[in-house]
Amino acid sequence: MISILPVRGLPEIGEGDDLAALVAASVELEDGDVVVVAHKVVSKLEGRVVRLDDLEASPRAVELAAGERDPRELEAILREAARIVRLRPPLVIAQTRHGFVCASAGVDHSNAPEPGTLVLLPLDPDRSARGLRDRLGELTGRRVGVVVADSFGRPFRKGTTDVAIGVAGIPALVDLVGTRDRAGLELRATWIAVADEIAAAADLARGKADGVPVVLVRGLRLRGDGSARELVIEPERDLFS
Amino acid sequence: MISILPVRGLPEIGEGDDLAALVAASVELEDGDVVVVAHKVVSKLEGRVVRLDDLEASPRAVELAAGERDPRELEAILREAARIVRLRPPLVIAQTRHGFVCASAGVDHSNAPEPGTLVLLPLDPDRSARGLRDRLGELTGRRVGVVVADSFGRPFRKGTTDVAIGVAGIPALVDLVGTRDRAGLELRATWIAVADEIAAAADLARGKADGVPVVLVRGLRLRGDGSARELVIEPERDLFS
Repeated sequence: MISILPVRGLPEIGEGDDLAALVAASVELEDGDVVVVAHKVVSKLEGRVVRLDDLEASPRAVELAAGERDPRELEAILREAARIVRLRPPLVIAQTRHGFVCASAGVDHSNAPEPGTLVLLPLDPDRSARGLRDRLGELTGRRVGVVVADSFGRPFRKGTTDVAIGVAGIPALVDLVGTRDRAGLELRATWIAVADEIAAAADLARGKADGVPVVLVRGLRLRGDGSARELVIEPERDLFS
Repeated sequence: MISILPVRGLPEIGEGDDLAALVAASVELEDGDVVVVAHKVVSKLEGRVVRLDDLEASPRAVELAAGERDPRELEAILREAARIVRLRPPLVIAQTRHGFVCASAGVDHSNAPEPGTLVLLPLDPDRSARGLRDRLGELTGRRVGVVVADSFGRPFRKGTTDVAIGVAGIPALVDLVGTRDRAGLELRATWIAVADEIAAAADLARGKADGVPVVLVRGLRLRGDGSARELVIEPERDLFS
């Protein structure tokens, strides 16, 4: 059995807080648990927050805001974007420096620490996940996995699902190549994006507005250690950019 | 707490089997459980299986097979496709008649009942889900949700995740518009594709080669009744076709 357990009672997280200590104080971790953290918490404690008042909108940002969004928000998006993938002003789908393709290059004004601020993606969410895993190990002696999750829209399908933007202590992809199905046929190249499925499962226990930024997924039996960068498709295999 | 429970001990499913009776005999259902069924089981019991020997490859199928795949498999894909979305022979990304965009229009040779056969998607997976829900209700008196799941690749991200292609008794999308985050800011239009997240969560307990086609997700508190068709993006909002 796999269990999805919201971690309740965490305080509001601010820059510089020791998230691992707060989690360790709130829940009894077990070896093999996967700690799924909403990226906004990680961004806030890493100071990846900008004030709209500190941004000056370029002419391009004003144009893309299309009179429907704050041009300074578009300015933040353009600064975070490594590449614009699709435009329908004021909607911007962009590739981030990490390689992720998502709306607004991951810039979000919801759940920001205060009105007038924007939360950016962590600079290196894999490193953030690794740091949290190491610190949880120090504090509890437990070997856990960590997923940093964000809500992404998807081409062709409505709604968002949570996906992994940072991974440590578990594989990001599980390779079923060479395993055989019940008829003895070899399954064709089948990589399962297990870190994304873990992020999605955790979101079921979260409730975006509920203030449950940390969720445990318990009972997975995963071996290996991956990174969310592995989930980014190689340019030569990308049929949609 | 949410639990993900594989339903063990089911026999191999064949055409015309009473899946609900087999599930009801294998597990004690509770009100609110969501029964997640791999679509291949549904396809098989609905007879959505074709024999390669019964297919004659058209010139177009031979061309798309590119000498790397059985042209009869491409023939099945072309027959299932309502629209080709991307081509890189022998890879075909197509939109099915249901509106789903996926590799090979959902045609799959893995987990087929026997070598030389292909499994197609159910004709109407929402109806399949509804039928299973109703029959489980008759047999057990329990009100459950049902998700028919398939493994889809995604643009921009490596690996597959399971998504919902049929839904009954639960919402497909949960609307967080108007809910407020902790700072009191209204969250922007945020629809969560909860049925897809449930399918993904169930896949964590499945193991593609393990023969666990039915998984329970217990402890969700969902109200409403949706359909997987709602997960198909409207053409006017589609930026990627």
